[in-house]
Amino acid sequence: MQRKKINFNSKFSKFKKYWSPRIISEMNDYQFKLVKIKGEFVWHNHKDTDETFIVLDGSMILKFKDHQINLNAGEMYVVPKGVDHKPFADEECKILLIEPKGIINTGNNHGDLTVSEELWI
Amino acid sequence: MQRKKINFNSKFSKFKKYWSPRIISEMNDYQFKLVKIKGEFVWHNHKDTDETFIVLDGSMILKFKDHQINLNAGEMYVVPKGVDHKPFADEECKILLIEPKGIINTGNNHGDLTVSEELWI
Repeated sequence: MQRKKINFNSKFSKFKKYWSPRIISEMNDYQFKLVKIKGEFVWHNHKDTDETFIVLDGSMILKFKDHQINLNAGEMYVVPKGVDHKPFADEECKILLIEPKGIINTGNNHGDLTVSEELWI
Repeated sequence: MQRKKINFNSKFSKFKKYWSPRIISEMNDYQFKLVKIKGEFVWHNHKDTDETFIVLDGSMILKFKDHQINLNAGEMYVVPKGVDHKPFADEECKILLIEPKGIINTGNNHGDLTVSEELWI
């Protein structure tokens, strides 16, 4: 458990890689992760858990099979468990993810963008 | 489960009362709550759960028995379970709380500021 306060901008300055979630804190058995995204992610779902997206800077799109959600800074969305989704961002977008410990970023769709290790910053 | 995206500013425009958490969404068995705070809250703790504070606008202080944490917009802190704390804000501050469903704002210290009902906006 990290007991210091967390400044999002300070943490974002510590990494550059897109689609590579960095853990910043834990709450019970949940984790907070910062992610920089740009371009297109992969279709995936998390069969056992909801996943929360909070946009801190920029804009992104959460694509679903039958619709899409446009998210701007100051907006959040909770993707229900088991629902296929594909994040996308035209320009760099900075987001805060909240989800249970141990969730893999690409869910059921392992591939080049999968990050299996826990990267703390 | 609310499936629409959530805009924090839009939600904050729907209420004025201080120290009265409003639920905006759920993730599994957790809830997201917006709160406007000003002045001094009461000492309390949540014996079974951590509690996350994210400052969206303004500044606040989390007072603990032996130190305090100053939080500004863009900063977060996870109060460990069982730890006495007292939020304080000189001027109006807007925060996002994340905690399990059913958590009472004043924890073990019921009183005038206790909000027992679930207020959704």
